[in-house]
Amino acid sequence: MAGTLADAPAPGPETVYDDEHPLWEKFRAAGLANWWLPARHGGPGVPLRVSVDLIAELSYHDPGFAFAAMLPILGSRMLEFYGTAEVADRYLGEMAKGGTFCAALGSEVVAGSELALTATTFRREGDHLVVDGEKAFSTNLAFGRFCLALARNAEDHRDFSVVLVPADTPGFEPGPRWLMSGLHGTGTYPATFTNCVVPAANELSGNGLRVLEVGLNGSRILMAAIAIGIARRARDLSMEYAGNKQLGGRPLTQNAVFAARMGQLEMELESLKSVCWRAADEYDALYAREDAAAAFHGQGVLKSAVMAKMHCGQTGWRIVSAVSEGFGGLGYTEAHPVQRLLRDMRHISLVEGGDDVLRELTYGRYVRHASRRG
Amino acid sequence: MAGTLADAPAPGPETVYDDEHPLWEKFRAAGLANWWLPARHGGPGVPLRVSVDLIAELSYHDPGFAFAAMLPILGSRMLEFYGTAEVADRYLGEMAKGGTFCAALGSEVVAGSELALTATTFRREGDHLVVDGEKAFSTNLAFGRFCLALARNAEDHRDFSVVLVPADTPGFEPGPRWLMSGLHGTGTYPATFTNCVVPAANELSGNGLRVLEVGLNGSRILMAAIAIGIARRARDLSMEYAGNKQLGGRPLTQNAVFAARMGQLEMELESLKSVCWRAADEYDALYAREDAAAAFHGQGVLKSAVMAKMHCGQTGWRIVSAVSEGFGGLGYTEAHPVQRLLRDMRHISLVEGGDDVLRELTYGRYVRHASRRG
Amino acid sequence: MAGTLADAPAPGPETVYDDEHPLWEKFRAAGLANWWLPARHGGPGVPLRVSVDLIAELSYHDPGFAFAAMLPILGSRMLEFYGTAEVADRYLGEMAKGGTFCAALGSEVVAGSELALTATTFRREGDHLVVDGEKAFSTNLAFGRFCLALARNAEDHRDFSVVLVPADTPGFEPGPRWLMSGLHGTGTYPATFTNCVVPAANELSGNGLRVLEVGLNGSRILMAAIAIGIARRARDLSMEYAGNKQLGGRPLTQNAVFAARMGQLEMELESLKSVCWRAADEYDALYAREDAAAAFHGQGVLKSAVMAKMHCGQTGWRIVSAVSEGFGGLGYTEAHPVQRLLRDMRHISLVEGGDDVLRELTYGRYVRHASRRG
Amino acid sequence: MAGTLADAPAPGPETVYDDEHPLWEKFRAAGLANWWLPARHGGPGVPLRVSVDLIAELSYHDPGFAFAAMLPILGSRMLEFYGTAEVADRYLGEMAKGGTFCAALGSEVVAGSELALTATTFRREGDHLVVDGEKAFSTNLAFGRFCLALARNAEDHRDFSVVLVPADTPGFEPGPRWLMSGLHGTGTYPATFTNCVVPAANELSGNGLRVLEVGLNGSRILMAAIAIGIARRARDLSMEYAGNKQLGGRPLTQNAVFAARMGQLEMELESLKSVCWRAADEYDALYAREDAAAAFHGQGVLKSAVMAKMHCGQTGWRIVSAVSEGFGGLGYTEAHPVQRLLRDMRHISLVEGGDDVLRELTYGRYVRHASRRG
Repeated sequence: MAGTLADAPAPGPETVYDDEHPLWEKFRAAGLANWWLPARHGGPGVPLRVSVDLIAELSYHDPGFAFAAMLPILGSRMLEFYGTAEVADRYLGEMAKGGTFCAALGSEVVAGSELALTATTFRREGDHLVVDGEKAFSTNLAFGRFCLALARNAEDHRDFSVVLVPADTPGFEPGPRWLMSGLHGTGTYPATFTNCVVPAANELSGNGLRVLEVGLNGSRILMAAIAIGIARRARDLSMEYAGNKQLGGRPLTQNAVFAARMGQLEMELESLKSVCWRAADEYDALYAREDAAAAFHGQGVLKSAVMAKMHCGQTGWRIVSAVSEGFGGLGYTEAHPVQRLLRDMRHISLVEGGDDVLRELTYGRYVRHASRRG
Repeated sequence: MAGTLADAPAPGPETVYDDEHPLWEKFRAAGLANWWLPARHGGPGVPLRVSVDLIAELSYHDPGFAFAAMLPILGSRMLEFYGTAEVADRYLGEMAKGGTFCAALGSEVVAGSELALTATTFRREGDHLVVDGEKAFSTNLAFGRFCLALARNAEDHRDFSVVLVPADTPGFEPGPRWLMSGLHGTGTYPATFTNCVVPAANELSGNGLRVLEVGLNGSRILMAAIAIGIARRARDLSMEYAGNKQLGGRPLTQNAVFAARMGQLEMELESLKSVCWRAADEYDALYAREDAAAAFHGQGVLKSAVMAKMHCGQTGWRIVSAVSEGFGGLGYTEAHPVQRLLRDMRHISLVEGGDDVLRELTYGRYVRHASRRG
Repeated sequence: MAGTLADAPAPGPETVYDDEHPLWEKFRAAGLANWWLPARHGGPGVPLRVSVDLIAELSYHDPGFAFAAMLPILGSRMLEFYGTAEVADRYLGEMAKGGTFCAALGSEVVAGSELALTATTFRREGDHLVVDGEKAFSTNLAFGRFCLALARNAEDHRDFSVVLVPADTPGFEPGPRWLMSGLHGTGTYPATFTNCVVPAANELSGNGLRVLEVGLNGSRILMAAIAIGIARRARDLSMEYAGNKQLGGRPLTQNAVFAARMGQLEMELESLKSVCWRAADEYDALYAREDAAAAFHGQGVLKSAVMAKMHCGQTGWRIVSAVSEGFGGLGYTEAHPVQRLLRDMRHISLVEGGDDVLRELTYGRYVRHASRRG
Repeated sequence: MAGTLADAPAPGPETVYDDEHPLWEKFRAAGLANWWLPARHGGPGVPLRVSVDLIAELSYHDPGFAFAAMLPILGSRMLEFYGTAEVADRYLGEMAKGGTFCAALGSEVVAGSELALTATTFRREGDHLVVDGEKAFSTNLAFGRFCLALARNAEDHRDFSVVLVPADTPGFEPGPRWLMSGLHGTGTYPATFTNCVVPAANELSGNGLRVLEVGLNGSRILMAAIAIGIARRARDLSMEYAGNKQLGGRPLTQNAVFAARMGQLEMELESLKSVCWRAADEYDALYAREDAAAAFHGQGVLKSAVMAKMHCGQTGWRIVSAVSEGFGGLGYTEAHPVQRLLRDMRHISLVEGGDDVLRELTYGRYVRHASRRG
């Protein structure tokens, strides 16, 4: 895979990594599509600890591909934990078999990060649920075979659920693709639900807000891991440039200031790995429990997952900020890939909870009460 | 002007701010083209202190336009100071009258920041000079009416001069435009000189390396001033977003964390103005002297100019890094201008001397010897 | 002076720079005591722009002395602007003649930075005022000849005044000296007022909160200027160490990483000067106006003064943080002065308004309303 | 222990944590002295992973005690790995039984971080070694029962060894204690060796420079872990202060800016734990190998150990820098412990290899050659 990705040109705005894209077809053929799906649903059951390294490798070559490829874990894990056996087996089975996508829908324009203000509603009508509303950002939505949407009970504003909506449900409409600053190749879309009728069994069990928190644990850790790959790329591009660049009559690789910057980068890069591996280990330990679904629901946001995303977003930004200055004038042109690293890295601190939101959450859940401090 | 720029869409990759672009035509019609040219050459003679504010205003709306519009000061001031009266009057007079561009050519691919390794040569043949070589980056080159190129004497590798080459000189060939990460609309190009014959009077007096340093003083201060405009834009976009965004049931403008970030930004923004104004005042004071050309040649790099560029590049980057996190998911899309601020701000630390080069220069000239410390 | 200070050992905890300290006696004999007092009160009338350079010089050698020497400007300028002619002339005249100290009392333990919660009260009784309450921190208080205390009207909690209390007023009692982390030699004390009776004419005119804001403008600019001196000292200590230290067989002064750090420091140091000079120039321009007292009262907090203190506190901290790593193991011992630079620099971001307070103030006064933005 | 430490006043300059100090006696009585010594030498054999948590707990209360208590691991592990069975058993056995100290001596004044310039020599004379020279900094030296000194062969300047010198060896002389900026209670001293004769068996096997690198792996990880304790203390002091402080009529614990700062601190604190735990796990895995001594000698500097020290020093400094601003004026007095956290934290980036040295080392060993990159 790595070779394939490395040889590919950077994806332009016309590229979408959907399940018909040649790169995805190779990925699927290699048995890698949806690699985390458990054996009982027909998947390879790769643990998160290994997934971190896989994502680091993919994002070294193409962060957009890495993002698109891992994001279905957000939806699928909610379904795996909180769907009925039948629904989970049907949809996850198809996903494992076909190497297809699913999507998740949390954020809305007005609610923003305040999910408790979610305006998308569901109402129970006999054996069915009816979903109405608008969502702002959902990656892989336009070609996902189903999506999992956070909605509030139209009759009880404190009651939230996550509802599975198949892509062919009448009234479900993905909007025009967002053009993103980085992560090129990733397809992200808004969506509207107009009187979408689905079976009642498509409602996941548990508090919808909590269910979404559980789903985000996996995708946040893997989003953090994208920083590892980008940072490695930043380092290797720097070394490659320095090997071919003379300064003061010697290769730049022998320059002390350059060496100091690379030594600092390496230390920061290792810290990315440390926090991701720790979060993944904690995730895998919880996942291995008999009562994993209940245990995750009890915890909601996994502290180490949020810490990993925040740390990697911030430290990753520091890394690419420093590196982006090291290529002279050429490094400001589109002829050189370094400025793209900035755009790709930027998403980590912005999506699936910006740092302001996560700092507040961290304080409320893990600092304020002395008994919960680490 | 401001209104015009504000209403204009962001320039796409096809836009070039040359002297036929409608925006430039309005700018010229307003009497603003090449505003720093002195009255004796037919220009408005606006001092640098005022130029800083003008650039801050232009770059608020369009940093690429601001960059393209101010960069001719680099070449024109070298010519004004070190050209013969006749040559200076001819070329600067046309430039003032026509609102046309000139370009400067310093950097080369191999030499990079080490201008003493410049490989472009000139040789004196009777009443003429012959210029040969390749240059890497020159803004406004493809439509500038003349350019000023740093070259080394083909017969004496320690002898450097800056030579004026008219755009229609046979053998002078701009290369394909560089696509830049930011500053869209600015046209930047490589160039080749093949046996370019120009009159001997086109050689500027003085050490070419020193002459170029003098030219850079003005453009570095104005490049620093671009950070002021981008930072103001970052602040105002933030305030606009916050005014329309609710958080916790109140406008974001009433949120304490947002307020703290904006208070910090304002302090940083004011520091940009302080360093630019001080540098401009020092420049203007030197420029007002009878012996300005000699005084500038004696100093070469103006300390405050380099300090301004470094400070604005670094602090400006801190400002846009912080602000770029404040717009939620929308702020990561191309539908929102905030990510463009990052790309535009980035150039300040990269071009006309990266910070590594300028730190070394600052140490060597202003720190190492106790008598020269501030 | 400089020589004297440089030769003196660092002050221990027993040193207090009061008006009987030998160093102060030399300072006074040199005509420098209270150098900002205007000619009409018998002072030298040195403008703030010059004061910045004087403080930078003093704090190079002894930041505690510089702090103690300049802080009376806070009280004296309130009196100069808002005292009756007779009271101002009497107390400022004595201060100019004798080279004595005055103190100001704003902060209280409970109110902290929220001056509107000030619990110290005054009540008007015929021709007198009676002051009661406790204040937390006041430099020079124990030996100041008079102090200026912010108090609230016992009968109207929205009415604040600044009241002059002579040091010999019965019921006025300085508390035990605070031992500070840095600024050694400075004497800072709490105080209690128990039924302190002073003439009614000792009440300064104007809103007490606003009057205090005006007084702080001068001391905040000079506190910012202390950072200049400490930063210069940090640089020179580094250069001295490097001149005597070999690394890789050459003096450390020839090391590229060291050079880069010093080049960066120099840029940051110049930015300290830029913001202080600009603030001082703005202060002096306002001070030169016929209606200076009214003009300052109209503005209250001078934006550039607050910006200078914030910038110098933050950038100064960055400077000494970096430098404090550059002396090997020796630099962690008390045998070397470098760790003291950290302690001295720290106060700038902490006293006379911490950065949290100033960020909020900046936002509220200078950012929130579009018409007031810079 | 924690209770005991928490109740103790901060150690003044007269305190030395030697083996007669009451706190040390309690520590020893609790079976904690030299906790890492292996069972075969009579010690408790606590792994490094547990040691990290122990150090974090100790340094929460008293970083100086934590430093003094863990530093003997540096010398003892060199002896354990590279001493003859008889010498190791004798000295480590006494150390385990008596709860006594040993010291290590690497740095010298002239050599500084360049250990290859070590000027202390040993020469082999029959069954003995003779050691001569001066060392700059050695913690616990004055009361350690033996020390391990890096020396160069007087007859071969490329041959380095580590030599065990018992404290009662004639000619061995600790110098006057260094007063340190932080880590109060720790006793650190220079030393001279004048014709010190020791048995030839006291020479450790292996390259002395490499042996010292191996010794430092353990102490660097535990030094990094000190940051965890200081950072926790910083957080808890902040929470305690905020619980008693009102701002805007509500406890500071409900303030959004405070919450954001604490959320950020918590994330940074967790990153300290992640890097320390990972380094400790890697250390323990290597230690568990049959061929541990050879395996460690083969690696020398453990990458994760150096990364942990660098990351914790830098991130720890960021944490205490931020926290030290959060206590108003009180926080600048010696009446409050917060400024001490700065002094204690500072040592992590300064001792056992400053960051400049470690960045260069990291680059040379782990970045420069593509095959060794992580």
